[in-house]
Amino acid sequence: MVTIYINRTGQTEQVKSIDRVWLNSASNTFLWVDLAAPSIPELLILSDTFSFHPLSVEDARAELHYPKIEAYDGYLYAILHGIAFQSEETEFATQDVDFFVGPNYLVTVHNGHSRSIAELHENALRNPKIMGEGPVALFHRIVDAMVDHYAPEVQKLEDRLDELESAALDSPTPEVIRAILNEKRRVGGLRRIIIPQRDVMSRLARRDFVDISTDMSFRFRDVYDHLQRLVDDATMFQDRITGILDAYLTNVSNRLNEVMKVLTVVATIFMPLTLVSGIWGMNVHLPLFPGSDVAQFWWVMGIIVAIVVAMLAYFRRRRWI
Amino acid sequence: MVTIYINRTGQTEQVKSIDRVWLNSASNTFLWVDLAAPSIPELLILSDTFSFHPLSVEDARAELHYPKIEAYDGYLYAILHGIAFQSEETEFATQDVDFFVGPNYLVTVHNGHSRSIAELHENALRNPKIMGEGPVALFHRIVDAMVDHYAPEVQKLEDRLDELESAALDSPTPEVIRAILNEKRRVGGLRRIIIPQRDVMSRLARRDFVDISTDMSFRFRDVYDHLQRLVDDATMFQDRITGILDAYLTNVSNRLNEVMKVLTVVATIFMPLTLVSGIWGMNVHLPLFPGSDVAQFWWVMGIIVAIVVAMLAYFRRRRWI
Amino acid sequence: MVTIYINRTGQTEQVKSIDRVWLNSASNTFLWVDLAAPSIPELLILSDTFSFHPLSVEDARAELHYPKIEAYDGYLYAILHGIAFQSEETEFATQDVDFFVGPNYLVTVHNGHSRSIAELHENALRNPKIMGEGPVALFHRIVDAMVDHYAPEVQKLEDRLDELESAALDSPTPEVIRAILNEKRRVGGLRRIIIPQRDVMSRLARRDFVDISTDMSFRFRDVYDHLQRLVDDATMFQDRITGILDAYLTNVSNRLNEVMKVLTVVATIFMPLTLVSGIWGMNVHLPLFPGSDVAQFWWVMGIIVAIVVAMLAYFRRRRWI
Amino acid sequence: MVTIYINRTGQTEQVKSIDRVWLNSASNTFLWVDLAAPSIPELLILSDTFSFHPLSVEDARAELHYPKIEAYDGYLYAILHGIAFQSEETEFATQDVDFFVGPNYLVTVHNGHSRSIAELHENALRNPKIMGEGPVALFHRIVDAMVDHYAPEVQKLEDRLDELESAALDSPTPEVIRAILNEKRRVGGLRRIIIPQRDVMSRLARRDFVDISTDMSFRFRDVYDHLQRLVDDATMFQDRITGILDAYLTNVSNRLNEVMKVLTVVATIFMPLTLVSGIWGMNVHLPLFPGSDVAQFWWVMGIIVAIVVAMLAYFRRRRWI
Amino acid sequence: MVTIYINRTGQTEQVKSIDRVWLNSASNTFLWVDLAAPSIPELLILSDTFSFHPLSVEDARAELHYPKIEAYDGYLYAILHGIAFQSEETEFATQDVDFFVGPNYLVTVHNGHSRSIAELHENALRNPKIMGEGPVALFHRIVDAMVDHYAPEVQKLEDRLDELESAALDSPTPEVIRAILNEKRRVGGLRRIIIPQRDVMSRLARRDFVDISTDMSFRFRDVYDHLQRLVDDATMFQDRITGILDAYLTNVSNRLNEVMKVLTVVATIFMPLTLVSGIWGMNVHLPLFPGSDVAQFWWVMGIIVAIVVAMLAYFRRRRWI
Repeated sequence: MVTIYINRTGQTEQVKSIDRVWLNSASNTFLWVDLAAPSIPELLILSDTFSFHPLSVEDARAELHYPKIEAYDGYLYAILHGIAFQSEETEFATQDVDFFVGPNYLVTVHNGHSRSIAELHENALRNPKIMGEGPVALFHRIVDAMVDHYAPEVQKLEDRLDELESAALDSPTPEVIRAILNEKRRVGGLRRIIIPQRDVMSRLARRDFVDISTDMSFRFRDVYDHLQRLVDDATMFQDRITGILDAYLTNVSNRLNEVMKVLTVVATIFMPLTLVSGIWGMNVHLPLFPGSDVAQFWWVMGIIVAIVVAMLAYFRRRRWI
Repeated sequence: MVTIYINRTGQTEQVKSIDRVWLNSASNTFLWVDLAAPSIPELLILSDTFSFHPLSVEDARAELHYPKIEAYDGYLYAILHGIAFQSEETEFATQDVDFFVGPNYLVTVHNGHSRSIAELHENALRNPKIMGEGPVALFHRIVDAMVDHYAPEVQKLEDRLDELESAALDSPTPEVIRAILNEKRRVGGLRRIIIPQRDVMSRLARRDFVDISTDMSFRFRDVYDHLQRLVDDATMFQDRITGILDAYLTNVSNRLNEVMKVLTVVATIFMPLTLVSGIWGMNVHLPLFPGSDVAQFWWVMGIIVAIVVAMLAYFRRRRWI
Repeated sequence: MVTIYINRTGQTEQVKSIDRVWLNSASNTFLWVDLAAPSIPELLILSDTFSFHPLSVEDARAELHYPKIEAYDGYLYAILHGIAFQSEETEFATQDVDFFVGPNYLVTVHNGHSRSIAELHENALRNPKIMGEGPVALFHRIVDAMVDHYAPEVQKLEDRLDELESAALDSPTPEVIRAILNEKRRVGGLRRIIIPQRDVMSRLARRDFVDISTDMSFRFRDVYDHLQRLVDDATMFQDRITGILDAYLTNVSNRLNEVMKVLTVVATIFMPLTLVSGIWGMNVHLPLFPGSDVAQFWWVMGIIVAIVVAMLAYFRRRRWI
Repeated sequence: MVTIYINRTGQTEQVKSIDRVWLNSASNTFLWVDLAAPSIPELLILSDTFSFHPLSVEDARAELHYPKIEAYDGYLYAILHGIAFQSEETEFATQDVDFFVGPNYLVTVHNGHSRSIAELHENALRNPKIMGEGPVALFHRIVDAMVDHYAPEVQKLEDRLDELESAALDSPTPEVIRAILNEKRRVGGLRRIIIPQRDVMSRLARRDFVDISTDMSFRFRDVYDHLQRLVDDATMFQDRITGILDAYLTNVSNRLNEVMKVLTVVATIFMPLTLVSGIWGMNVHLPLFPGSDVAQFWWVMGIIVAIVVAMLAYFRRRRWI
Repeated sequence: MVTIYINRTGQTEQVKSIDRVWLNSASNTFLWVDLAAPSIPELLILSDTFSFHPLSVEDARAELHYPKIEAYDGYLYAILHGIAFQSEETEFATQDVDFFVGPNYLVTVHNGHSRSIAELHENALRNPKIMGEGPVALFHRIVDAMVDHYAPEVQKLEDRLDELESAALDSPTPEVIRAILNEKRRVGGLRRIIIPQRDVMSRLARRDFVDISTDMSFRFRDVYDHLQRLVDDATMFQDRITGILDAYLTNVSNRLNEVMKVLTVVATIFMPLTLVSGIWGMNVHLPLFPGSDVAQFWWVMGIIVAIVVAMLAYFRRRRWI
């Protein structure tokens, strides 16, 4: 679906088709052409009306691309990635948004699910200032919104890390390991999404492109800072996951220690007692323990109590119990 | 085997030998000379007909080389690696393809098993456009196909990682460790193959060479992006393998814990019971437990049941059973 | 709250409002305007009186920012992070301080809790030299103090690491693991705070900005050195934490070994003894051990003592006891 | 021992002493002066005949040096490392070879054990072309041979890694750990030897030095490629060693699991049986199991068989046996 | 204490005070002024006699600094670190030495414990050549000696690593872990000391400073090489420590395996035997084993021997014993 907004004399309105006169950079007119999930004929607008370079048109048509920005003759072409809503998947889902930024127009191409552009549709007509600042400002506005939408996903990631840390320390079940591995992949995916976008912002902020004014470069610098913080977060998350795995492994070892201490304490106490009962069960006269059958019983009881007390004292001293 | 294609006035045909006139860059003729597993006399075409520099000819003859690109006087010389079909081996197998890219000719030298070049042979005559774009475009087309052929191998690698992850979490046998080590080497091999090729593409995309037009540099940039994504994949795979090894080790520890809990539960329950049976087996009168032989039996049973119930309660509380 | 200091003819005094004449760089007057937790109307001073660029004003208003420095027309704008007092939290808390450094004024914006600026308030009137050196020197003085305040926090971190190392080696409880993970995050946080500030200082020391004299650049170089040492400390801390985790894990394994040795020694000694007592408890004539009931007893005792002595000798030789 | 070869009018011959006229770069004469384990008087040739800079002469005299290359006035001075033959040591042994490369002479200084130079001695007189290409080509020839001699040592390393991997997976004895540590040091040593030499080659290939022709730079580029592949090998070896250590540790854990399963199975089966025998050994009437002495026996046997069957079924279900 | 040496007309003598005429670079006089643990009045010589920049004077006064080198107007100012003698501490101890290198003077400031400077004091008067080469050569001589003094400390470190490796493989006690952690910190400390000094030498070798002649830059290049080798050593040490820790952990696991094998073997042999003795101890007639009491005994003995032989064969086949 093609939606066309035009900003003239301070007013923004929606139009059905593009008058080529408007594309003249002296026309004092700002255009925003949004192609949401465009059909093949709709895509012709890129080559026919705007005469974009075939390579950039082809890139805009293709689905999967690395974020990048390139200066063509008379316009900038950028691919950036928005984050997709759902998050039950193993990896972050992203969607391409393509930008053609000219002197007085912005053309966006996407699959129709971009939240950032949907928000702009809602506000473009209502607030004429939005388009009045020109196409680079509009480009920045969309990019800024796209990066802002990363924040809640990153927050969810951090929350899950907190949960995993607690789980690793409190109940290290095998399911936790599986969850840790999944989280590790998610964090890796986050880095892979953010880093190339940060590099695009860096080029805009450093004003590698003459079409970017100083003012605009400062704004892109802000987006760059935001992405840099997200990269820092992702790096920290990776560190945390390593730590959580270590904690898990250590915790399992600790628990094994506990189990073995119980076994050792039990065996160390009962084996001598069983021996004692076995000795008095022998068909043998015990000259060291004189007395009647009942006296024999008290001998046994005495020895048993002595062993148990000694053992408990020993384990208490070693701090096992 | 030497195969020669010529593109003149929009038509591509196959010829038997090369007319030196065609090599004149003003001749408006495009040549593609493919040397598949060339014999020594066939290789003479490189030095005699094309007068290539002896060093580049020698490189083209040699088997094993690092991917590289070098500008000689009047032509570019590049070595790139295609991926070989089979994949049961421990490491990825590759095959050299050598390219001599001149103003109006492309010479390729390889061992005859390059899938990408075989595909081109099938299409070169059918579609005259393929050669009509000139030798750099033809070079790009082969390189692009070579890189495309990496994708299924990388996919196989990822599938095997998924299997290994499941195996490490579900049945950590020693065979899985061996498989993980092998996979680690494969991933390392993948990186070693891709990174130098990406660097060659980077030089082509950055237009280090004057013979590359802006248009072509954008196309090589696409190949570069593709290789960069593969590098990212390989890096992610390395991370995953580390994670899988950690998961394996943790899983083994978990299982040890399980085993030890069983042992401890069993020993902790049966040792006191054996002691009880031992005490009543002593040749001793038990004044604490009065009564007939049958009453004695019920005393024993009572104590045994009490011990078992107490122990089970204890272990249930510690969540061992 | 807005506080304004003015330094004229070698004297520093506090004034209520700013005379625009003073802002003229030829006025031979130094101004320091401090906005502590400014209200919205108070913030107007930035745009109205000083006519700062809207972007830098907006940045100064916002709460959370990455440390950075930017040259605007006629002034430098910097964001730096002071460290906050409390330290019971999981991560280091920081607070933004914004600086506008002009030819004869310094404007600082912060949340009112900056210790470094509070110290300067105490001394500014008392010691006229403090403001007499000009706004860049004043800027350096605040920054230097901010960095100095990191030292005790870093010292606390190091002390905690010492404690954790001892704990990991002496009493590896699960609580220690939790503490190690927390400390790891604190150290990671420290790095994230310090590194961007070091980079800002590096730019000041390298004199990326024309407004910085050689003298001042040497002073910023000192601050840079200080931050670089802190970065080195943080890197070393990260190394130590890895080592502490390794020590913990190894220690747990060592202790498991100890536990198992006890169990094995006990079982290895008592199992044969129990067998001996069981043999003499059989309803069977033992032809190998002739003699009366009492003689039988001494046979048993002899065998028991022989087994115990042999076992102890064996374990002593293996250095288990 | 000083050996002097001279190449004039296409012929190579050995001479006893150097005519200073030959050193004139216009003399159309190529000299190769080889000092093998030179005595102090023999070393004087460097300063007296060739008037080399004292610093480079001093470097040539010293034993241990980092590979490097430096341009002096009129000649290049290079130190490179050959690999020594023996390989039973913990680390790779190397030997310095010093090169003075002038416009029409090459001077080599070494300890007399360089295999690469020995090979050249054998061929220099036989094949006049060897020296006819000039001193830089001769320099390249020696360097190329030195690097070629690394290959078999690297191959031995790889073979040992294969052995260690098998050992770690099949019989993880403590000796294997010691061997892994030694191998790790060897691989580290290999990297330390190769990387600085690669950097020297890189400078020669990039033509940092005016005395290197394009042709020669391509040849050094080949040596550089060879060293780069060796660096890649060494990096891969390091990865493999990490993997082997992990495999070792995992394998030890696996074996511990096996041991503990045996113990647990045995204890879990025999403890109940012992209890059963203990119960029938009590001096107590068992009202639950009526019948004669023989009937009692069949009761016991029945219970024992039932327990064993149940236990075996349980362990089979848990896949322990 | 201030010591002043003067070198004029090839002779070196010690003087009490400085004649300002000597500082004139045309005076053909070389001065070395050494301030060992200078008092405040002695330090005045820096500002009063030499008129050094206040910032460098302040740096020279301060105790703790990062190694650095800075070009001031007319002289170079450098801070370098000597290694201190004792080595029982956890970290390497260093001491600042400050250098002011002018056209015809060298001023050194230190705490009086620098071994390198002490050696120079001994030789300066005896050998007039030492000072005759000028202040940069003198500077190099001190720096070279300082770096040479690192070697024995590094050697000690390596020896301790050898000991730790043996200990980890032979007797992995908890004390070894503590020693490994300490060694790790020492190695980390070594890197932190050496790397900034190497960077200073790199700047001197690259002739970032006009006052350094080519000859001198080659000498500093030698010091740089020496430090680079030490950095390589330290990196290798870090690798070794990681390996030693891994070896320790693996060794502990191996030993646990040994312990558990002993336990399992003992339990697996004695549990069936105890059951046998228990069965013959039952108050029950054993119809399967007919015969007299003595015959019963031989039945028992036969079963016991059969069990022991079968078990030993089983364990021998599994290579546990």
